[in-house]
Amino acid sequence: MRQASGEIQISTHGKGLIDVTRPLHAWLNEKKVQEGVLTVFIRHSSASLTIQENADPDVQLDLADYFERIAPESWELYRHNSEGLDDMPAHIRSSLTDVSLTIPVLDGRMRLGTWQGVYVFEHRASPHIRKLALNFMGE
Amino acid sequence: MRQASGEIQISTHGKGLIDVTRPLHAWLNEKKVQEGVLTVFIRHSSASLTIQENADPDVQLDLADYFERIAPESWELYRHNSEGLDDMPAHIRSSLTDVSLTIPVLDGRMRLGTWQGVYVFEHRASPHIRKLALNFMGE
Amino acid sequence: MRQASGEIQISTHGKGLIDVTRPLHAWLNEKKVQEGVLTVFIRHSSASLTIQENADPDVQLDLADYFERIAPESWELYRHNSEGLDDMPAHIRSSLTDVSLTIPVLDGRMRLGTWQGVYVFEHRASPHIRKLALNFMGE
Repeated sequence: MRQASGEIQISTHGKGLIDVTRPLHAWLNEKKVQEGVLTVFIRHSSASLTIQENADPDVQLDLADYFERIAPESWELYRHNSEGLDDMPAHIRSSLTDVSLTIPVLDGRMRLGTWQGVYVFEHRASPHIRKLALNFMGE
Repeated sequence: MRQASGEIQISTHGKGLIDVTRPLHAWLNEKKVQEGVLTVFIRHSSASLTIQENADPDVQLDLADYFERIAPESWELYRHNSEGLDDMPAHIRSSLTDVSLTIPVLDGRMRLGTWQGVYVFEHRASPHIRKLALNFMGE
Repeated sequence: MRQASGEIQISTHGKGLIDVTRPLHAWLNEKKVQEGVLTVFIRHSSASLTIQENADPDVQLDLADYFERIAPESWELYRHNSEGLDDMPAHIRSSLTDVSLTIPVLDGRMRLGTWQGVYVFEHRASPHIRKLALNFMGE
């Protein structure tokens, strides 16, 4: 049993989902892992993680639209608006999705389903560099 | 320190919650574990995981109703409708609940609270076989 | 590679978020850990966990308000009301946030972002003692 710690940085382009499955697999390959668990942790509270269908890009657009509706931008709804109209909805959307994911690994690959991809979900309107803290534990 | 990897399959019967606490404990017993962490990962994006009260079955019905209201079926709301009226709401409901759970284990048992059960939450209208990837790490 | 298991108890004061970052760091210090993963699991289904911005207390108030709106108290909406008006919304809000968090650790500290804090989110109206099951795995 051993572990590896690391960090990858993801450039986002305003609101929306970015597929990070490939950079995560690249990191696992570099660490020459076989079997274990990958922990992915996003070090921000206005962007989050989610695992979603990767076949039809419309799913990602519909998902982004849904969170616009359910946690809308508004000057009236929130006290916290000093960082912009999009900041408090970003915190809410983060709390509704994931800050950490734990993904079993076998034969050096995440055991994702056929149609699953791992995404960073950017909730701010402007581009950001998002840091993902990684830990692999296993063999 | 050692680990065990595995998979269990759960048959669902259309929308609703299915208690999987017993098959998870059966898997842990089989692996003769004592102390550590169980990772449960669902390899699908239209069914998810949740931990909820297991005492009153009404809680599970109310929870299912809630997600019907908050992410309704609709031909107008979503672009992605080629897989049926229930597919895009299934993806949304999955993103709002859990794709992975990490549960501490002690004395060979998950350290659940008195009233907690682990559930697969089926979001599609028709029955499915759902695969749960498992990893135990510890002693 | 080694592990440590434990439990901390948090006193809540009715609905709202309580910062538990310091008691978690205190537990890690006590266990003299360096590098690995901390699993935090809440053993209740009417309180939950979340990681959020810790700079502006308004964020936590806005977040609590949001969940009041999205999963309101109501005698009409739910079957399960024998435990009080606030109980079923508490279960729903728990399912929308987190029951378990996995947080990478380096140099003995959780690898949180600059503005991230770990919170217990109490969803019941009255004070409770909430048990967090902890597991650290690593070195």
